[in-house]
Parts: sequence; C-alpha cells; structure tokens
Amino acid sequence: MDFGADHVAGALPEVLAAVATALGPEAGPAASYGGDAWTAKAVDAVRDVFEQPDAEVLLLVNGTATNALALACLTPPYGSTYCSRNAHIATSECGAPEFFSGGAKLELVDADADGKLVLDTLESRLASRAANPKAPHQNVPSAVSVTQPTEDGGVYSVAEIEAIAGLAHKHNMLVHMDGARFANALQAESQATPAEMTWKAGVDVLSLGTTKNGTLCCEAIVFFTSAQSRLAEARFRCKRAGHFLEKQRFLAAQMLAYLKDDLWLRSARNANDRASDLARGIAATPGCSLVRQPAINILFVEMDKAVIAALRDRGIQLSLTAGSEESRGTPEDPERRARFRMCTQWSTTSSHIDDFLCILREVCSANAAAPTQLHA
Amino acid sequence: MDFGADHVAGALPEVLAAVATALGPEAGPAASYGGDAWTAKAVDAVRDVFEQPDAEVLLLVNGTATNALALACLTPPYGSTYCSRNAHIATSECGAPEFFSGGAKLELVDADADGKLVLDTLESRLASRAANPKAPHQNVPSAVSVTQPTEDGGVYSVAEIEAIAGLAHKHNMLVHMDGARFANALQAESQATPAEMTWKAGVDVLSLGTTKNGTLCCEAIVFFTSAQSRLAEARFRCKRAGHFLEKQRFLAAQMLAYLKDDLWLRSARNANDRASDLARGIAATPGCSLVRQPAINILFVEMDKAVIAALRDRGIQLSLTAGSEESRGTPEDPERRARFRMCTQWSTTSSHIDDFLCILREVCSANAAAPTQLHA
Amino acid sequence: MDFGADHVAGALPEVLAAVATALGPEAGPAASYGGDAWTAKAVDAVRDVFEQPDAEVLLLVNGTATNALALACLTPPYGSTYCSRNAHIATSECGAPEFFSGGAKLELVDADADGKLVLDTLESRLASRAANPKAPHQNVPSAVSVTQPTEDGGVYSVAEIEAIAGLAHKHNMLVHMDGARFANALQAESQATPAEMTWKAGVDVLSLGTTKNGTLCCEAIVFFTSAQSRLAEARFRCKRAGHFLEKQRFLAAQMLAYLKDDLWLRSARNANDRASDLARGIAATPGCSLVRQPAINILFVEMDKAVIAALRDRGIQLSLTAGSEESRGTPEDPERRARFRMCTQWSTTSSHIDDFLCILREVCSANAAAPTQLHA
Amino acid sequence: MDFGADHVAGALPEVLAAVATALGPEAGPAASYGGDAWTAKAVDAVRDVFEQPDAEVLLLVNGTATNALALACLTPPYGSTYCSRNAHIATSECGAPEFFSGGAKLELVDADADGKLVLDTLESRLASRAANPKAPHQNVPSAVSVTQPTEDGGVYSVAEIEAIAGLAHKHNMLVHMDGARFANALQAESQATPAEMTWKAGVDVLSLGTTKNGTLCCEAIVFFTSAQSRLAEARFRCKRAGHFLEKQRFLAAQMLAYLKDDLWLRSARNANDRASDLARGIAATPGCSLVRQPAINILFVEMDKAVIAALRDRGIQLSLTAGSEESRGTPEDPERRARFRMCTQWSTTSSHIDDFLCILREVCSANAAAPTQLHA
Repeated sequence: MDFGADHVAGALPEVLAAVATALGPEAGPAASYGGDAWTAKAVDAVRDVFEQPDAEVLLLVNGTATNALALACLTPPYGSTYCSRNAHIATSECGAPEFFSGGAKLELVDADADGKLVLDTLESRLASRAANPKAPHQNVPSAVSVTQPTEDGGVYSVAEIEAIAGLAHKHNMLVHMDGARFANALQAESQATPAEMTWKAGVDVLSLGTTKNGTLCCEAIVFFTSAQSRLAEARFRCKRAGHFLEKQRFLAAQMLAYLKDDLWLRSARNANDRASDLARGIAATPGCSLVRQPAINILFVEMDKAVIAALRDRGIQLSLTAGSEESRGTPEDPERRARFRMCTQWSTTSSHIDDFLCILREVCSANAAAPTQLHA
Repeated sequence: MDFGADHVAGALPEVLAAVATALGPEAGPAASYGGDAWTAKAVDAVRDVFEQPDAEVLLLVNGTATNALALACLTPPYGSTYCSRNAHIATSECGAPEFFSGGAKLELVDADADGKLVLDTLESRLASRAANPKAPHQNVPSAVSVTQPTEDGGVYSVAEIEAIAGLAHKHNMLVHMDGARFANALQAESQATPAEMTWKAGVDVLSLGTTKNGTLCCEAIVFFTSAQSRLAEARFRCKRAGHFLEKQRFLAAQMLAYLKDDLWLRSARNANDRASDLARGIAATPGCSLVRQPAINILFVEMDKAVIAALRDRGIQLSLTAGSEESRGTPEDPERRARFRMCTQWSTTSSHIDDFLCILREVCSANAAAPTQLHA
Repeated sequence: MDFGADHVAGALPEVLAAVATALGPEAGPAASYGGDAWTAKAVDAVRDVFEQPDAEVLLLVNGTATNALALACLTPPYGSTYCSRNAHIATSECGAPEFFSGGAKLELVDADADGKLVLDTLESRLASRAANPKAPHQNVPSAVSVTQPTEDGGVYSVAEIEAIAGLAHKHNMLVHMDGARFANALQAESQATPAEMTWKAGVDVLSLGTTKNGTLCCEAIVFFTSAQSRLAEARFRCKRAGHFLEKQRFLAAQMLAYLKDDLWLRSARNANDRASDLARGIAATPGCSLVRQPAINILFVEMDKAVIAALRDRGIQLSLTAGSEESRGTPEDPERRARFRMCTQWSTTSSHIDDFLCILREVCSANAAAPTQLHA
Repeated sequence: MDFGADHVAGALPEVLAAVATALGPEAGPAASYGGDAWTAKAVDAVRDVFEQPDAEVLLLVNGTATNALALACLTPPYGSTYCSRNAHIATSECGAPEFFSGGAKLELVDADADGKLVLDTLESRLASRAANPKAPHQNVPSAVSVTQPTEDGGVYSVAEIEAIAGLAHKHNMLVHMDGARFANALQAESQATPAEMTWKAGVDVLSLGTTKNGTLCCEAIVFFTSAQSRLAEARFRCKRAGHFLEKQRFLAAQMLAYLKDDLWLRSARNANDRASDLARGIAATPGCSLVRQPAINILFVEMDKAVIAALRDRGIQLSLTAGSEESRGTPEDPERRARFRMCTQWSTTSSHIDDFLCILREVCSANAAAPTQLHA
C-alpha cells in the first residue's frame, strides 16, 4: 500500500492496451511527429470534451513541461506570471517556468488554507503594479496561473475562476490553469462541465494532466480560442525543449483511451471516493485527525510520529518523502505529532482502504496503550 | 510500406510487454521519479553493456532532449560545441542545444561525404582559436560532438573516434557522441564493443538512442567515468526541462527489454541487413542507382522523379518529407531525377523488401517504356 | 532642488577632470578592453581600499549589470539566491538576475522595517530546504545577497553581516553584497573599514557602486579571495552581456578619481550629513514627520498631499516618481497624507537644505491655515 | 603610434566638453533614466539626421549590446539571424546575440573578399529553408544582419543593401544593420544620405556606432518606422541587461556633440583619408603591399614579419593582437610574410602618417639590405 502520491500507481489497463494496439505489429508504420491518425483523433477528442472545435492541442509527456511551455507562450522573458505561493510551478519544478520563458518571473501571491490564490491580494498586487509607473524597472504582468485542484487539495469554484480571470483580463493578462489533476477537480465540482471550468470561466490555456490519473505519461496543453494563435510558437518551443516525440501516436493512443467512455472521470471518481473513505476512517480512529475534509484524492492528516513509524514498519508508504511531514506537537512534546499529505489513486480499491484502516487502528491502539515505548 | 524514416515503425513486442508488466495491475504502486527497482536495474544494464560499473545513466524520452541536456552539462553558456555541419544537433533540433545551454554556440565543421566531421578542419579550427588571444571576445571551445552513425549513414571507425577525442582532450574539451542509432553503428563496425566505440576511444558522454530501433520512446545519457560528476547537474537540468518523469519505470522497463538477450543488436542487425538487400535490389534495377553503399539502415538513392511519383501512387512512403528530395538532372532535363534518403526499420522484413523491389521494377520498366508520359 | 534620488546629481568635478585627462588629446591612444594602464591602476586602487591584494575587480557602467553578473557567477541556472523581499535585485531590475543567470530564482525573504533581511526567517527557510530531500524538484540554494545599505536606508552592522554570511557558508552558499551605496553605509558605520564590512565579515563578492555617489557611470564587481576564481567566467559573461567597453580607461579613470584622497568617503559623508539636516528640519516642521531617523542619505517622511503638491508647484522634485508615494491617511481622510522617500546627494549643500526647509515651512504653514483649499 | 584599432583613440574634445557641461556643477540635477532634456534632444538629433521623425532611438554604451539587443527584438528564441560568416556579431561578441535572444541562432552565410554577405548564397539558403517543410525542426528565419562597413573594410552600395533587404522582406524577415562604423561607410559612399543608406534601402533597425569615431562610449539603436513598435520591448530588454543608465544624459550629451555641425562626418572623413594616405605610402614602399585598396579607415597590408618586428621595436602598435597576423609566405619561406589589418582613427594626423611611413621605409630598406639577419 502506498499513499505517498498518485503517480506511484501504474497505468490503466485500457491505456496499456491502446498503446499496444497503436504501436504493435498490427499497426504497421505511421507518420512520425504527430502526422499520424491517432494524433488527429486525440486532438479532436480533447476538443469534444471541451466543446470547442477550434481549440489547439499539444500532447506532451510531462506536467512540468506542459506548464512551463504553456507559460512561455504567454509571458515574454521580461514578463511575470502571478500564482499562489505554493503552486507546483513555484515550488516543485526547479525553475522550469523561468527556464522555458528565458527568465520571466513568478510573482508569488498568498494562498488560503486550501492553497487557492487569494483574490484580494492578487487584486492589490496588480493594482499597485499598475499604479507604479516604474517601467521598465519591473517585469510586465503577463499571466495568472491557477492550479485546479491545488497542491493542497483545494478546488476553485467556477465563480472563483471567473473572478480571477476577470481581474487578469482587466490587466491584459492571460489565464493559465494547471490542471495536473483536472479530472479530480471536475469530480469534486460535479455540476461544472470541462468547458465551464475552463474557457467559459475565462481560462485561456489549460495544462490537462492525465498521468496521475492513470496514463503512462501524457499531458496536453489546450489553447482555447483566445490563445489559439500561440500554437505555432508552442510547437517550436516544444521541439527545442526536446518534447516533440517521434512516435507521437504513443501519446495520442493514451489520450484516446483516457477520454473514451468517461474512463478519466471514472478513474478520478474512484480516487476521490477512496479519499473520502480514508478520511472517514482516519477521523474515526482515536489518535488520528483530519486537518480538513478532502475535496479530491488528497487529504491531510495528523497523527503521532510513533504511529507513522509503526505503519512504515508494516510496509505502508505514507507520504512522498520521509522529510515532508510537518511537526505538530503538544506543548509538552512539540515533536510528538506530524501532519502530512496522503493520496489515493485511480487504482486504490475499497479493500486497500479497509486493510489500511484495520492496520491503522491496531497501531494506534498499541500506541495509546504504550505511547512512551513506541514514541521512543 | 514506409521507407521514410526508422521512427515510423512501432515498438518491439518485447518492449510493449515489458511496459505492460511494469505498469500493469500486477505491478502495483512503485516509487516515482526513478526511485523504483526497474530504474536501478536499467541503469545497471547499461553499465554492463558498456563495461563500466561507475558510469552514470539518465533515462529520457527523446533524442533531442538527450543531446541538448548532455551538451548543456559540458558547455557553459559562453562555451561552444564543435560538430559536423550536418549533425542532427545543428540541423534538426530547432536550437535545442542553444536553449538547454543558455545560448552556447555550435561551431560547424565541414563534413565528408559520409557526414563525418573532417579531422583536419577541426584541428585547424581549434588551433586557430587557441592561437588567437581574443578572449573573452569568442566563446570557449568546450566540447566536440560526433554523430555515430551520421545522419548521412556514415560510421566512424574506432580509430577515427580516438583521433577526434584525442584532439578534443588536448584542447581541454570533452567529447559527446550522439548515438541516436548507436546499435546500427555497432552492427556496422561489428568488431568493436560498445565500450571500445565509446569511452575506450575517448568519448566522455553518450546519447544512447533506442527509440528508432524499437522502443516507444527511451533514450539515455551515459556519463562515463570521465564525466560522471556531471550527473548531479544533469538531474536538475532534466527536471527543469520537464524531462523527469513521474512513472520513470516506464522508461526503465523499455531499456531493460531492449538490452535483454541482445534484442537491440538483433533489431539493428535486421534493419542494416534489410538496407543492404534494398541497396542491392535498387542498384540492380535499371534506371535506379545508389549514391553510395549503405553502412547502416540508411541509404541514398537516385531515380527519376516520375518513378517516385508512381511509387507514391502505389502507396509507398519513400522519404520523410515530400520536399526533401534533391533534384539531380541530366543536362537535357535538369529536373528529371532526384536523390533522397531511404530508411529500413527494425520491423522491415525480407518480404517487405521483395515486394517493394518488385513494384519498383514494374514502375521503372513502365517509365523506361514511356518516360515522357510518366514524366509529364 | 531635487530630492527624488541620488542619481539625479551630476558628476564630481574630479571625476570629470580625470575622464578628460585619460581620454583627452594629451593622453594619445591606449590599449582597448582594459589592457591600458589606467585599468591596472584602478584595480590596484580597489585592492588597496579593501586591503586584499589578490581580489579581482571588474569595472562596469551599471549597478543592475554589476549585481546580475556577479550573481550569475555564483548561481547555476538551477540555483537560487536568497535576498530580502525588497532588495533592488528583486524589485527594480526587471529580472536581470534571472536573465544573466539563465533563469535562476530569487528566493524572497521577509525584511525588517529597515529593509534588512530577517536572519531567523532566512535560517528557517534554509533549514527547511535542507531538510526536504525533494531534489531535483527545487532549485539549489547557491547564494545570499545582502543590500548594504538597503533600499529603505537601513545599514547592516558588521555583526549582522557576519551572522548572515556564517549561515550562508554553513549551507555552502556564497555571499554577495549589493553595495550600490556602499560608501554611504561605510560612513554610517564609521567604525568599520571597507575590509571589515565585506570579506572580513564573510562577503565573497561585492557590487561596489560609485555612480550614485558622484561618478558618471562606474561600478565594480570585487571578487574577494574566496570567489576570485570566478573572474575568468565573469569576463566572458561581461563580454556577452555587452558590458566589456572598448575604451575601458574611461571607467578606470572614474574609479581612480573617486577613490583618490578619500573623495568617495567625503562625498558620502556630505550626502549623509545633509540627510540628517533635512530630517531634523522636517521633524521640526509642524505637519511633517519622519518615518524613522535616517542612517544614510535616504529618509522617509510623511506629510499632507496638499503640501507635496504645493512644493511641486514651487519646482521641487520630491520623490522619484509621482506614483511612488504611499497614502497614509487619518481615519477621517484616508487619502490626506502620504509617505515617501527623499534622497540627498553628494552635491547637496547646506544652503539647498536651508532653502528647502524655508519653503517647506511656508507651505506647511499655509496648508495649516487653509487646509481645505489646498487639499482640494 | 597605434594602428591596431580605431577604439584605441581617446575622445573628441567636443564630446568631452559636452559631457562636462551636461553633468558638471552648472547643470544641476536632472531626471534619471532618460527623463532628462538632453536625452530628448539627442533622440531628435538622430531623427533629424535620418529624416524620420517617428524613428525610435535607444542610447547604449556598447556596440555588442546594441547589436544583440536589437536582434533580440527581431528574433524569437526559436528564430535565426542570417549574417556574413565574418560579421562581428558572429565572430567577436562571445555569443551576445544568443544570450540576449534566449538562444536564437546565427546562420552564417559566405562572404566575399570585402566581407560582404554573398546575395546569391543568402538567396539559395533562404529558398532551401522555405522549401523544406521541416518545421518545427529548424529555427524560423527572422532577420538578416548586414555590417556596414564590414569588418574587412568593405562598404555595401545602396543598391546592394536594397537587394538584401528586398530578399529578407520577401521572406518576412527584418533587416538589421550593424553600423559600428556607420560614419566611415557614409564617407566612403558619399553620394548616399544616412536615410538612403538605411531605411530608404529597407533597413528596419540600425546599430549606430559612435565610440570608434570619437565618443567615450555611446551607441544607438535606431528603430525605423517599420520596426518602431519594438521600442517598448527594447526598453525592458535594455533594463534587464543592465544597460539602462541612471545618468542617461551622459550618453545623450555625447550623441548631441557627435552629430552637431557634422562633427561625426568630419571625424570619419579624417580617418578614411588618413587610411588612403597610409595605403598609398605602404604601396609605394618596397617590400610592402596592399591586399586591397581601403574604402574606409581599415586597410589590409602585407609585409615581412621581420619588418613587423622591427616596427614594434620602434614602439609602433600595428595590429590589435600579436596573434592576429595571418602568415603569407613565399614557396621558399612559407612563414616569411604576414598579412594584417591596420586602422586609422579620428585622431590620426597627416604627420602621424608621415612619421610612420618614414620609419617604415627605413626598416624596409634595412630589411632588404640584410634580410637574413633581420628575419632571423
């Protein structure tokens, strides 16, 4: 059992089968570099899902590349992208946005408890920049990037996206959405369609992730009508970043299988639901608590470090890296407890959850009985 | 039938099976970002093949990325890489080496008919640069890159590589080898081992391609002992270029299957042999000629444009792009003939060749009988 | 009268004379690109001032270039520089550090009221980064940059610099000091020598500004012994950034005149002293207040916007840009008052201050008598 | 005496005086960053000279920066600039164009004996690129840069510039002119006005040099109407490259003095005329020869190495660097003679030339009398 991340899971059988078909002996040779029939179909499938026939779509292997390449098409080297202080693009991509854009800045904006960018702060930051005629001493505000859902498991409502996009557009900036877990957000805000959560709310460019939700490696940049003209530039940037695959049908086959018959939505639904189950079970286990209710497949929990250690001894992966727990103690023992992130996956089953909760209860109960020993 | 490129082929069944196993339901979750067991094994497999236990290996999805990332670890932004005028890094990567390195230069050196860098020219260029104390007006010569085999189908002998590497090292430069079709070169120079063709001859870093020879998308940077210390830097550059895959075992599984039981050598052997068959058949067909004998799976042929058109009408893909044929005419009809490149693939069979040659003979014979009509 | 900035002043007569001598008809031709005798002497003069004979010195025309070039020699593209949130490199250089370094990040650290980097915050940021084994997902902490004095007029004590440098070195980072107004800081901390305020306290590289303190345009990067080896790289980066002047003696002549006979210290002394006079006078003027006592030639004041407008009507430049005042109101009238920055210059005389204060008193008194009219 | 380069000369007295006036005690404070009256006047003066009231002008300290910044406004990172193989931007700027543009390529085109780009070669290169639909594998041809005059002392006629510009515009590329010695070219093609040699012939952006012709350090980018919209971008790029000077009037004052009363034309006229005198004298000296007649202030000569050594012993600087002579021997003694470049300066007088020729004749005559001894 591994609750460290969603990308620890393998690939959906339908995706593996589609790849084997598209590149297997029956398929024969096909045009390279996206000139093949699978790619054309995959682009159309994405357009269909987003109800925008003239959206432009670029398929890539990796989310960091997808985000950074998209942003490089929106911000000149002397521009800046405003994003939440704990956006993945800011904290976990080793400067990819700076690299792809030739040195544009990320302007970090405060986030709320869900990791969502605080609109008022963004507004005052942009107003202050607009009022200050210091140009060319400061970068040109060029884009706003929202992470949907956030790294902290928060989900923007459509109205929240509209408000941010409206503000961005007022300042002549474009709106990027990092949708590495877009399907999970869609499931959480189930009344919204893909179109409503994106371009209808003002999003100009979407990073549409699929890898965490069950493909091998397949992400897309979706340039909606308002940013459609950037495709030509994006293709050159893609090539020079080494992201223009020879056997592009390999990506297209994944995307086609992923979107077919709502597989993507069902996979995300499962991950979200298992996270709810897990949350319920953890909240009900004495000695454990939830930091907040999960909206998607990410949850934040708190328990004794002794419990974590005991779970690890039972072979359970809990958080992505050993160092990522945040100490949360009691006044008497400031190092006693830890908060950390857990993830469920498209492949997590109810029995995985049951098994884990069973072990958790055992461990917690032993810990409660003999906390000192365990803790030491 | 498609002779336009080798990357039009699908993937080896063994590779597809390995991916399905490594990421299928049985495999369960595995550590992301290369912390998994497959990746460790794949690195060891590459070390074994090259007989160098402390070589460092980075797996990537794409050859352009592999080359550009490797070079960025060898050349500072104010440095330069010397390579053949028609090296892939110079002609076909849309400035990827410049992008990854932060603007380092490619210094283009004349090539011989096989596309191989002319040693004497390289020597005089480096001597002239060393003699001219214009620094810092000129970039610092930092690396030499050789393409093995070349884009023109040429193969450097071990002695030739040694001579280039010796010269480079004399000038304190490091040696990179673009081995996008390394297995094909090995088969052509069959007396040389992988180690002899690389680090034993002075190569410091190798781009080891596998995609063209039968994987989905899998390339490796091999840092030999002399350049081993660059791995740490390479990992950061890899991440910020969006080439650090979450489900890295997907790459590792491909590499393991590729190297297992000499699959890579057998695949390359087949492609090379089919190119020989094809060459023989074309040379024997009246109206067609070989530009030179093929050493690997790439051959250059010349025939009437009318013949090319007729072959295309029969559904045969001949060269990668319609525009890439070079006109070669007779004094009476300067536009009559064309030279172009053909490639065989790991998946090309003898019956593909037979079928093609049969059609070719028919078409040529019809063309000879009624050249004017066909030509018009 | 102009109190908007220090760089609104012209050049010291000694500097103008030195330039006229070094490049005038008597001087005749001289080697370009720093091969001249003036440059050698200027380098030695800087070494003498800092009591470090093997320091390396590069002369440039501009402070932004000096900072960004110095940092590019300390941070790889995948590295980061920690600095105060309102450091000039972060707020006012349009991304120059990102540009010169190929996309390295500035990590912004909270500042105290004087604009000085808060040591505790830096410490916890670095500790948290060191504890988190997320590499290569995050940039490598490579340098700490302190601005001495700060943009807010604060001056680090030698002990404070030592503490920051000690922390940086513990984390294998190098220390850069942006000394755009270094002479003003030296005068403020007059017990410290240039050496004590820099390399003896752990500074590895200094941006030594002279332009604001009386030259035409002349700044130096001083690589102290610990960073001396970076000179070679710096020279290439300098050339490719278009900062390697043909008639380099033009810069050297300025630096020589600037340092000769303590001219630099006297100029800074004058600017600091006039700021003290100005502060005293403003504090004593009814309706005006000081935000805090000035340590150097920068002071922050608060007065009614009506007063500012009236002063401007009298031809007095107050702050650099019309938009840079910060509104500070009373509960009844939130827009009534403004805080802004004033600067004195090397060329400011006591009679400039007297004249200004005289006008200020008149204007304030009129404003007090009829605030409504003026305010409207 | 120094004939190594033109930038070994000092500055014109008029320029020194103008700087002293603009930044001296009488001038008082002035707005920074180009907000001053001198800058506005200098921009207008350039517009007047080029007869284009809406041209945009940016003043910089350095020619490398001027060229690279101009090109960065014309070529995206995935673009390319075509230029002569021995253009200064290609050979002597340490990759500045690549740096400023974020990695765009210079495509080197063959040059004729005068260093001028061969139109036919350019035409076939562009035609071949246009015919080859390999995008996005290759950089986008974005600009053509011509050096007027060339580094080899050649001067393009207006008709030649028109032909190149016509070709560039046909391919949707913009035309940049590196006019580091623009005044010298104007004097050589004396029937052409500045406007006729530039925008009327199709030049979109000019690097207008003045440093080599008598200023301290002052160059301008002139964006003609067709490229005028790039100014906004150029200002941000200028700032982030550390080329936006605080005391901008320092540059403006130089430019105003330079253009006033045709000073620039008279200076260039003098340098060109002295080069003619020098050429005549050298051609008439037994043992010396001209490689070709000089068009500007640059000439190429050939003489015995023994003569060069003897001249150096007499304290005469001949070529910029000791290593830059090219050996030219006789069959019997292939190392006997050398070709090298000589430059005259705005400050070279007829008596300098007379004195030099007198010494040259002496040395040559001694060498002819006892060649073996001298040569040994």
